[in-house]
Amino acid sequence: MQRPLIEFWYDFASTYSYLAAMRIEAAAEAADVGVVWRPFLLGPIFAAQGWNTSPFNLYPEKGRYMWRDMEREAAKLGLPFCRPDPFPQNSLLAARVGLVGAEQGWIGAFTKAVFRAEFAKGRAIGDPAVLAEILAGLGQDADAVLAEAQGETNKARLRRVGEEAQARGIFGAPTFVADDREVFWGNDRLERALEWAVAHGRRSDWPV
Amino acid sequence: MQRPLIEFWYDFASTYSYLAAMRIEAAAEAADVGVVWRPFLLGPIFAAQGWNTSPFNLYPEKGRYMWRDMEREAAKLGLPFCRPDPFPQNSLLAARVGLVGAEQGWIGAFTKAVFRAEFAKGRAIGDPAVLAEILAGLGQDADAVLAEAQGETNKARLRRVGEEAQARGIFGAPTFVADDREVFWGNDRLERALEWAVAHGRRSDWPV
Repeated sequence: MQRPLIEFWYDFASTYSYLAAMRIEAAAEAADVGVVWRPFLLGPIFAAQGWNTSPFNLYPEKGRYMWRDMEREAAKLGLPFCRPDPFPQNSLLAARVGLVGAEQGWIGAFTKAVFRAEFAKGRAIGDPAVLAEILAGLGQDADAVLAEAQGETNKARLRRVGEEAQARGIFGAPTFVADDREVFWGNDRLERALEWAVAHGRRSDWPV
Repeated sequence: MQRPLIEFWYDFASTYSYLAAMRIEAAAEAADVGVVWRPFLLGPIFAAQGWNTSPFNLYPEKGRYMWRDMEREAAKLGLPFCRPDPFPQNSLLAARVGLVGAEQGWIGAFTKAVFRAEFAKGRAIGDPAVLAEILAGLGQDADAVLAEAQGETNKARLRRVGEEAQARGIFGAPTFVADDREVFWGNDRLERALEWAVAHGRRSDWPV
């Protein structure tokens, strides 16, 4: 039976995307809504606004607040949290692997494992060896997946995802899209997005 | 009997401060927490970050999203909402009058009336005649209050409030401060601030 869906747009380097990733499945299940995992890169979107790094680095007051808020919010959710060094981590390879995972059906497990490695264990998610270890832990052939992730077809796919994010008006992460067009920004809006999907969401042909 | 307190920092031009102002009293009462109304100006804080207007104007995607989100959030709270023209409104005089109201005990009623005029009725809150009408509606001597608001003593007071906001690391509005130091940013964090005040808040000598 088909359920309404929300799309979950996230960047693997994004702090609040970590919180959303760790709680979205239970929240969506409780609302009887399906989740489409949509990894993308914030970098080009920030660059289009004239930013060459995270706004949390560019605006130190906002950054200081975010780290404190993340500590509190992670504690509230019972999640471990450490500050990646450097921040933001390079999320390009993880995003490329994520697209392969979306094709092959292991994107959710991969996403949670990457976020845990980054924000609970402080590991370098831009390092292919770290991603290979995560893939192996999921029972995947790490070498084959990394090769496919870095192939031209998949690189082009990630560029198209970025164009879609821009076209949808996405400017930060996490972002949830309900009913294929209603945009909700921030971990705090997950519940609103789920309510919207239940109230308005057409049944979709997206693979979930 | 003394209750824990939260400080509610807001700019009269701030959209999400409107939502917070209209719901804070009921939420705080339910938590048995007192509210200290702290009007301030975001302008100097934005200017220190290199912005000459609201970030919602500087970053159009973010602005478009905010207006849509405000429509949804206001509807959720059963509040009318219209988009001020121009945005942001000039909030200097309202902030000055607010400080007089804080001294004289009518700041809460004044604040809600100003936000309603601005965001429910589309009125120009920078216009002294609009503020005079609001003051008269609260039973105040509008001429006397406006004169005091624009006196040198009160202008200096507002500058000191701005320095305090900077010193506390406040970078946006609304911001809630619990236990005299724990900072929570955004209307979405009101409940967290109240929880914090209940769990950690020392009884304070602030007048409420």
